[in-house]
Amino acid sequence: MFAAARYPERMHLDQPLDRFYAVIPAGGVGSRLWPLSRADAPKFLHDLTGSGQTLLKDTWDRLAPLSGDQRIMVVTGRAHRAAVEAQLPGLSDANIVLESEPRDSTAAIGLAAAILERREPGVIIGSFAADHVISGETLFRSAVAEAVAAADAGYIATIGITPTEPAVGFGYIECGDALAIDGAEHAEAVSSFVEKPDLDTARRYLADGKHLWNAGMFIARADQLLAEIARNKPELHAGLIELAAAWDDPATRGPAVDRIWPRLEKIAIDYSVAEPAAAAGRLAVIRGHFAWDDVGDFASLAKLNTAGRSGELAILGEHARVLADASSGIVVSRSKRVISLIGVHDIVVVDTPDALLVTTSEHAQRVKAVVDALRLGGSSDVL
Amino acid sequence: MFAAARYPERMHLDQPLDRFYAVIPAGGVGSRLWPLSRADAPKFLHDLTGSGQTLLKDTWDRLAPLSGDQRIMVVTGRAHRAAVEAQLPGLSDANIVLESEPRDSTAAIGLAAAILERREPGVIIGSFAADHVISGETLFRSAVAEAVAAADAGYIATIGITPTEPAVGFGYIECGDALAIDGAEHAEAVSSFVEKPDLDTARRYLADGKHLWNAGMFIARADQLLAEIARNKPELHAGLIELAAAWDDPATRGPAVDRIWPRLEKIAIDYSVAEPAAAAGRLAVIRGHFAWDDVGDFASLAKLNTAGRSGELAILGEHARVLADASSGIVVSRSKRVISLIGVHDIVVVDTPDALLVTTSEHAQRVKAVVDALRLGGSSDVL
Repeated sequence: MFAAARYPERMHLDQPLDRFYAVIPAGGVGSRLWPLSRADAPKFLHDLTGSGQTLLKDTWDRLAPLSGDQRIMVVTGRAHRAAVEAQLPGLSDANIVLESEPRDSTAAIGLAAAILERREPGVIIGSFAADHVISGETLFRSAVAEAVAAADAGYIATIGITPTEPAVGFGYIECGDALAIDGAEHAEAVSSFVEKPDLDTARRYLADGKHLWNAGMFIARADQLLAEIARNKPELHAGLIELAAAWDDPATRGPAVDRIWPRLEKIAIDYSVAEPAAAAGRLAVIRGHFAWDDVGDFASLAKLNTAGRSGELAILGEHARVLADASSGIVVSRSKRVISLIGVHDIVVVDTPDALLVTTSEHAQRVKAVVDALRLGGSSDVL
Repeated sequence: MFAAARYPERMHLDQPLDRFYAVIPAGGVGSRLWPLSRADAPKFLHDLTGSGQTLLKDTWDRLAPLSGDQRIMVVTGRAHRAAVEAQLPGLSDANIVLESEPRDSTAAIGLAAAILERREPGVIIGSFAADHVISGETLFRSAVAEAVAAADAGYIATIGITPTEPAVGFGYIECGDALAIDGAEHAEAVSSFVEKPDLDTARRYLADGKHLWNAGMFIARADQLLAEIARNKPELHAGLIELAAAWDDPATRGPAVDRIWPRLEKIAIDYSVAEPAAAAGRLAVIRGHFAWDDVGDFASLAKLNTAGRSGELAILGEHARVLADASSGIVVSRSKRVISLIGVHDIVVVDTPDALLVTTSEHAQRVKAVVDALRLGGSSDVL
């Protein structure tokens, strides 16, 4: 099934997965992970799992067996070009799309779709965030393979994560009827996308078995995805098509980017594509049974790195010198300083050369507000 | 009464205070204030009150109006000579006594007493720690003046602090009968010295009005103090006398120090002088009504710098860049890093270039154990 990955010279064979092209939008600072994540060192450029490599490289390594490493496109900010290329030596020039400024996910993924559809009509693209953590590669690959089959059948497909707890930090996908799709035996229709719930609602979702976590994974034929954008955001669609037409000619790309990109509407693909497609019955979901986390804040990072065991202290950092007594939570060390903790529980300590954060898991979501306050307060040097 | 301070050329006049010589033992790292206090930057070399100067200089400034600045002797470690001299430009070479290694307070104060008694028989010395915090200068000076009068009458005098709360971190002095001493109207006999009590005992001490905090201030005629050491620790006394005899000749001091100092018994003056003198009825105490703190740990430092108001956050550090949200306790900043606190209460954060401490007021006493662990663990570079 994954033999395709071994053939860099690819042909259009009969299998939908042979038409699969992975897209990695690598954007977003991850403000809730400040001061670890910064404008110049966003979340996807960090090793948050102790794997020894960045989340971006983890994402690449997860997708390459599915698509082949010649068939992964990365969309990122101009400022991150060098860092991304250093992380991904297999990434060709043709497969890096640089944003002059962030225009949200519809523009990022839609441009990739438009470029790839021009290069290879009928291509099936799958978009996967650069900064999520997944374990269970085999389960991941089989879910993607089913999603690709659903995409080949004309659906906008997504992979929803089977919840393991009543999480309030994620959006949810409500499943509808089973769909009969060849090669996607577990596909179900999506009734709706729902925003982050309160705890009672999350408990109900967990119990009813009909709700999955929205992991922001979208798999579709590029032409179908573009058609969905065209239906809902025609101006944005027109801009993307015009930009893609100019993209592969060095003489026309630059002027087109300068003219079109800054005026594209900023809108998340959840609103421009997923919700309207779900409402129209064009969205299919595959249940993912692998472990997934968007590592949205330090509470999530702590849980991830203690395997959810409370009372433990997770330590992240290559040169960490931590001496802890009767303490739990997480220490992220990006300096070589000695860090001593005494009697602090569920603590979050993030130690970087120019900024230090001390909070608790309970307050981890409020880090973003601090970042905003620092920006307003003239401390952008540490953001 | 304090006019003497204005006459650097002093004569033996009729007032006991004219024979007063202040001694400041400046030793002790202050391990419980790590990583602020270090072997090479002990507690007395820090500004812990936001006064803009070190505790040592505060101590000097407090004593100079009593003794005159030509009559203050500082006993400190060789390693601190330059720092002490930089802090105290008024300190003459003859008035700095350098220890080749720490031998505890009897050796430090006893040597000062022996040197000064040789230079000026009949001198009254008063020893005051270099790293305590006092406010209420007038009350302090009147207590010292009474203690000097009691010393002149032949007592070993101390100043006990009227307790304001049931502190368990201090030793206590139990007062006995009133003494009739000219110039020391409030002097009382000392029944005993008692070690740090538990909370119930401390509450009883606070209620009974007979117990004062032992602030380690001893005022006595140098010959009486030496006689007390001779009674209880004759070998130590003999060593001090021999060392003092060699002290003021550059040819003999060095060899005498090398021969004698390392073999002097290490014992606190509380045990060699104060307790036996109290038992023998030779110890008088004056009640000090000024505010005093030995700033023994970060809980004490936090209380001192928030004026005891809980729920507030004290920030110490010249270049502190602290952004705090719903947090209380203390931040000590010795770096220029941005420090952000969110939702942490009674927190202690001490940020230095090579070491960081995060604990709470409740656990502040345990910092010493961490210092011991770091020493054993091979991290002496940050001690």
